Amino acid sequence: MGQVIATYQVYDRAGQFTKKAEGIALGLTVGTWTDLPDLEKEQLKKHKGRVIEIRELPEDEQVNQFFGERRKKAEIKIAYPSANFSVDFPAILTTVFGKLSLDGEIKLLDLEFSPDLLEYFPGPKFGIEGIRKKLGVYDRPLLMSIFKSVLGRDLSYFAEQLRAQALGGVDLVKDDEILFDNPMTPFTSRILVAKEVLQKTEEETGEKTLYAVNLTGPTFELLEKAKQAVELGADAILFNVFAYGLDVLQALAEDPEISVPILAHPAVSGALTSSRLYGIHHALLLGKFLRLAGADLVLFPSPYGSVALEKETALAIGKELTRPQDGIKRAFPVPSAGIHPGLVPKLIEDFGVDSVINAGGGIHGHPDGTIAGGKAFRQVIDSVLNRESIEETAAKHKELDRALALWGGK
Amino acid sequence: MGQVIATYQVYDRAGQFTKKAEGIALGLTVGTWTDLPDLEKEQLKKHKGRVIEIRELPEDEQVNQFFGERRKKAEIKIAYPSANFSVDFPAILTTVFGKLSLDGEIKLLDLEFSPDLLEYFPGPKFGIEGIRKKLGVYDRPLLMSIFKSVLGRDLSYFAEQLRAQALGGVDLVKDDEILFDNPMTPFTSRILVAKEVLQKTEEETGEKTLYAVNLTGPTFELLEKAKQAVELGADAILFNVFAYGLDVLQALAEDPEISVPILAHPAVSGALTSSRLYGIHHALLLGKFLRLAGADLVLFPSPYGSVALEKETALAIGKELTRPQDGIKRAFPVPSAGIHPGLVPKLIEDFGVDSVINAGGGIHGHPDGTIAGGKAFRQVIDSVLNRESIEETAAKHKELDRALALWGGK
Repeated sequence: MGQVIATYQVYDRAGQFTKKAEGIALGLTVGTWTDLPDLEKEQLKKHKGRVIEIRELPEDEQVNQFFGERRKKAEIKIAYPSANFSVDFPAILTTVFGKLSLDGEIKLLDLEFSPDLLEYFPGPKFGIEGIRKKLGVYDRPLLMSIFKSVLGRDLSYFAEQLRAQALGGVDLVKDDEILFDNPMTPFTSRILVAKEVLQKTEEETGEKTLYAVNLTGPTFELLEKAKQAVELGADAILFNVFAYGLDVLQALAEDPEISVPILAHPAVSGALTSSRLYGIHHALLLGKFLRLAGADLVLFPSPYGSVALEKETALAIGKELTRPQDGIKRAFPVPSAGIHPGLVPKLIEDFGVDSVINAGGGIHGHPDGTIAGGKAFRQVIDSVLNRESIEETAAKHKELDRALALWGGK
Repeated sequence: MGQVIATYQVYDRAGQFTKKAEGIALGLTVGTWTDLPDLEKEQLKKHKGRVIEIRELPEDEQVNQFFGERRKKAEIKIAYPSANFSVDFPAILTTVFGKLSLDGEIKLLDLEFSPDLLEYFPGPKFGIEGIRKKLGVYDRPLLMSIFKSVLGRDLSYFAEQLRAQALGGVDLVKDDEILFDNPMTPFTSRILVAKEVLQKTEEETGEKTLYAVNLTGPTFELLEKAKQAVELGADAILFNVFAYGLDVLQALAEDPEISVPILAHPAVSGALTSSRLYGIHHALLLGKFLRLAGADLVLFPSPYGSVALEKETALAIGKELTRPQDGIKRAFPVPSAGIHPGLVPKLIEDFGVDSVINAGGGIHGHPDGTIAGGKAFRQVIDSVLNRESIEETAAKHKELDRALALWGGK
């Protein structure tokens, strides 16, 4: 019989974790147990939650300081039979972290699905291999960039900026996540203009660039809107999944007509992941869940920039997106924010060749402009893969040299 | 021009709140400002975010303890022009708390909508007055109860328990939020059985009881499923809105064919609201947002039970749901968890007559069973409204007497 096993981090004054875990396992499934007649026990057995493990951990002094009293800490694992829920994110989240999310200092760290349940989730439609095939790029990290300040500007500004990014050698260009459908750069016009611009740059450079359009608006219009985007020739979709819901991402990923990669943005997710005491662990929410729900690429804060994650956390997200898993394609990790060319060696060391280097200011802010900004990144990526020293490469390429002079890294 | 004004609670080592606020106001709108040519400033003026207020607050010693260093604290208000977003929850959340939710110790406390924007939100279809009219009950708090342990049981168990609750004088009976569509008690059968049971009890007692069926399953099937429920004669819908998305609730509320009240459950919301440093304030998420999105009744943790909110927070949610607001109906506050008859005087004092008393164990756990459990609540509600002492009422009614003896409150 199928099940999900949830791992929780819990704190408790008295350290009565066995009692707490039993309370959860029963409270979120059959309610009561000990006093039930045998006949009912038999009937309810397949619905009963089970405590799998209770692991006491050293107290967290920082947390003790916060509460001004000692709190015992533990990780507990509880198995929920799949007989209890329909296999979709809303039902599973409500089961394992519905009422429980309201119950004091408790954080959902992980969720392990039995293999039969994994079949209910699509995973990425393209994944790392599919996107590499689209681009014809197999041997290096991809380079992504973000439009800068399109809000309030017109389509010619949009077209010009897109062209510069493509000429700089960027593989994927994404809309800013705060650019919604608007009269100056409407959704459909952005797709059509981008198509024209990128066909031209491909003719000029021989390199493909994909444009990810921000899919926004009311939930129940999204499927039609995404299909329309695909019909108009959109290359990829950017989606603020946490402003909608994991299940909405899954529906987009499952629809065969929405035949383009989906780039998941972490907007709003900080409200769920930031606390050490509450919420959902980054690697579970941004890693495991987004991959299962069907994101092909996942943006998350890099460990280096101003909006930063701890390195261990960012690596854990990357690992969830890329670890081998039967029947579920791998998704591209896109560690973002504060990325400049000097960080590329570290990015490749940390996230591997199967990752995306993503920059905004680190491309547009180049002293010689956006094209040079893109080139500097491509130069340093090649340098790392060719095992050249950055200094040597910079000596040969003025774009990289000037980028390193500005942002450091030589 | 329309705008939303967001209030954030922020912490900062150096206390450079003016710089921080300006950074947010520009970073989440036009990007840069000072160095722009005048022509562009003119063009972008209507998109520029504005810092409205910076209010430094006393340091929070508990937070300082947590970080092991002093952090200055402030509340800052920033106005985002509505020219920047489509007027829907996903776009607004992404604008005011998208990337920003990932940016360190920041909590979204409130969002004030300019009046023109409020017209985009439906608010409750029925609200307090509409639900009272459905029930024919105008002068007392309503009484709600929750099924106990239906998971794994069959329809006859469901029917029996529903009948007992109705005979006990309960106004609204809700599904357990962890009861999904399942072979033993399918969605449609629950609606049909409930209708039959409740027609009969109404004939017997002369009192109406409404049954709220849990609307679950994939997002894009919900509208059709809800309409089917209404066609089959469902009285009300229970919805785990935070497992889906605020915009999904709004779509249900806006659909004229879904002509029944919606009861919003707070499942999963604790992941967003529990932290003092991160996430979204309870009163905003469970109060203002749920009311605007169209919840007719809103469950939230009471200040008294084991899963408890601070009293001030619970009252703030209740206030957001019920304060007079042009064009938006009032929603019923349903403070829940750990409610027994002895708490009713306090509940009415705190949340008023226009609230719902909601109990699970406090009804089913009555020594003389569920019917007696319901009656005890109705007795104590009448007692409070008639300004009788609880002791007097208990002396007249054995149901209340035994409940008070078990749970206290006399």
